[in-house]
Amino acid sequence: MEKVTINDLSKMLKVSKSTISKALKGYSDVSEKTRKRIVKLAKKLNYTPNSIASSLKTHQTKTLGVIIPTIVHHFFSKVIDGMICEAEKHGFLIILLQSDERFDLEVKQINLLIQKQVDGILISVSNQTSAVVHLQNAIDKGIPVVMFDKVLKNFNCSKIIIDDKLAAFEAVDYLLNKGYKRIAHFGGMLTPQNSIDRLLGYKNALKAHGIEYDQRLVYVNPNNDDFNDGFYNAKKMLEEHRDIDAIFAITDSIAIGVLKYFEDKNIKVPEQIAVFGFSNWFMSSVITPSLSTVNQPNFEMGSIAVNVLLDEIHCKEKNEAFAFKKIVLPTSLIIRKST
Amino acid sequence: MEKVTINDLSKMLKVSKSTISKALKGYSDVSEKTRKRIVKLAKKLNYTPNSIASSLKTHQTKTLGVIIPTIVHHFFSKVIDGMICEAEKHGFLIILLQSDERFDLEVKQINLLIQKQVDGILISVSNQTSAVVHLQNAIDKGIPVVMFDKVLKNFNCSKIIIDDKLAAFEAVDYLLNKGYKRIAHFGGMLTPQNSIDRLLGYKNALKAHGIEYDQRLVYVNPNNDDFNDGFYNAKKMLEEHRDIDAIFAITDSIAIGVLKYFEDKNIKVPEQIAVFGFSNWFMSSVITPSLSTVNQPNFEMGSIAVNVLLDEIHCKEKNEAFAFKKIVLPTSLIIRKST
Repeated sequence: MEKVTINDLSKMLKVSKSTISKALKGYSDVSEKTRKRIVKLAKKLNYTPNSIASSLKTHQTKTLGVIIPTIVHHFFSKVIDGMICEAEKHGFLIILLQSDERFDLEVKQINLLIQKQVDGILISVSNQTSAVVHLQNAIDKGIPVVMFDKVLKNFNCSKIIIDDKLAAFEAVDYLLNKGYKRIAHFGGMLTPQNSIDRLLGYKNALKAHGIEYDQRLVYVNPNNDDFNDGFYNAKKMLEEHRDIDAIFAITDSIAIGVLKYFEDKNIKVPEQIAVFGFSNWFMSSVITPSLSTVNQPNFEMGSIAVNVLLDEIHCKEKNEAFAFKKIVLPTSLIIRKST
Repeated sequence: MEKVTINDLSKMLKVSKSTISKALKGYSDVSEKTRKRIVKLAKKLNYTPNSIASSLKTHQTKTLGVIIPTIVHHFFSKVIDGMICEAEKHGFLIILLQSDERFDLEVKQINLLIQKQVDGILISVSNQTSAVVHLQNAIDKGIPVVMFDKVLKNFNCSKIIIDDKLAAFEAVDYLLNKGYKRIAHFGGMLTPQNSIDRLLGYKNALKAHGIEYDQRLVYVNPNNDDFNDGFYNAKKMLEEHRDIDAIFAITDSIAIGVLKYFEDKNIKVPEQIAVFGFSNWFMSSVITPSLSTVNQPNFEMGSIAVNVLLDEIHCKEKNEAFAFKKIVLPTSLIIRKST
């Protein structure tokens, strides 16, 4: 006789496969009556669940995979802190991977997490990522994906972000209102979305103040090494444009590289040039001069991302529909001595 | 007929259980001849491996559990960086947990990792940890444990550490050789071992220079919040001892709290009081004045810890004896403007 499968049981009992699986595992959310029916037939037909298949389809591994560009980063370490705390509250463990801003590594890591049968994936995509086949592959295998911080517009999933365009607008608007006129932007590569949006916010603020956008005042960090890129671009900028009176940097780390170059060259901040950062790293509060910056929720971003992912996993388990969520967390300006 | 077990096969074939397991999984390190013999008998006796038992005993889950006090910490984030990179090279994934310096959480997390059937555990113990029952429990379940950075003397396992006593001695010896005479120590709680050792190194250096140890010059951080504790103790110290000319702090973060208090109070560093840190955080190089500190290997500590653990896992798998390793990584003094 052919081995009895969960499909056979499901058809005979007119009960979903996940209910059968739960009943046989003794989960409490199956009614006692249904459980007895299921157990009786399973015994009669000598059905034993295939543990690998059951793990693949219905059994949670109680692990979430997380991919971030790098952990040695105040913002991401705080996000991970929030994720680990929230996941643990719900009995889930976090497998942590770093893409190092490399698309090839990110693809490999998504595949590792699929193999590992994680219940869901949280990802802040690498700067190189624009294709989404690897992420779609996870979804196709029944593993929900939630993006946070660095997200892709062209991929349909839940996203936990800030309004980068608005935050950048507010920072540059603040500088312009303070009387700074010629403001450089130290930006990032034009993937992912948050680099684009911070540049757009910078442009919008200039426009709102009737100032023409000058592409030559935008410096991109060439090496993905924020501190040194900030240091290097500060040098380059001073050689090219002596009239700049303020810099809006895309990260605190770039801004701190700028501050160090200016300290070395004895350029007074903010008297000669003001500097505005982004992210409110702890370091930005203790550096001299202390750095004005955009406060960006980090621990909260991590815990909310886990909650949204667990909601989706829960819905999936119950075969309920889940509407992707886009949660935009509020930012605020922190004004310190550098402006 | 009784169900055939891997023990039965092992006896009949005179082949180890792990070889049988590998052969049935098609691993390449079993000779084709042996594999055929094993597969033939397994088929004949209708042997199917019990997946749960096989996972418990011989099958690797290819995951390592890591417990650290906190991830929002430059040193630990670099160690984790090293661990993730090294683990990935060998096809292992890292499950990361934070004890938040709490013994009760650490115990809970060890149990979670045991349930999760990780292949090994890497731990830097919490400040509250002195008992070892939870760690012994992991070992008893066949899960090797490797300690790094914050280790316990009373637990027998591999340990990756620095020579805290020597490093602290060198820092304080440097200050004394520079002519500083009355040196305070901003230390930590007296668990774990590295706090004790850094205090001993401080004492030894005083002794070597014929200076009597004065317990009133030792300030312990009361809140496990290094920056604020440094700030607070700097205030307390100035109220109690106006004659102190240098501070040796147990972490850079405490030292930076001290520097900020002195900046607020307009106390010149190093002219009035010199400050020496420990760990060489990135921040210590960009703070004003830049901080003299002990450079402590971090990324390397993580990758070496993973390698030692994988060696032990490998030996266990082959039923080979494994001698615990104690690896002491070299430190060095980084002299900057604060001294």
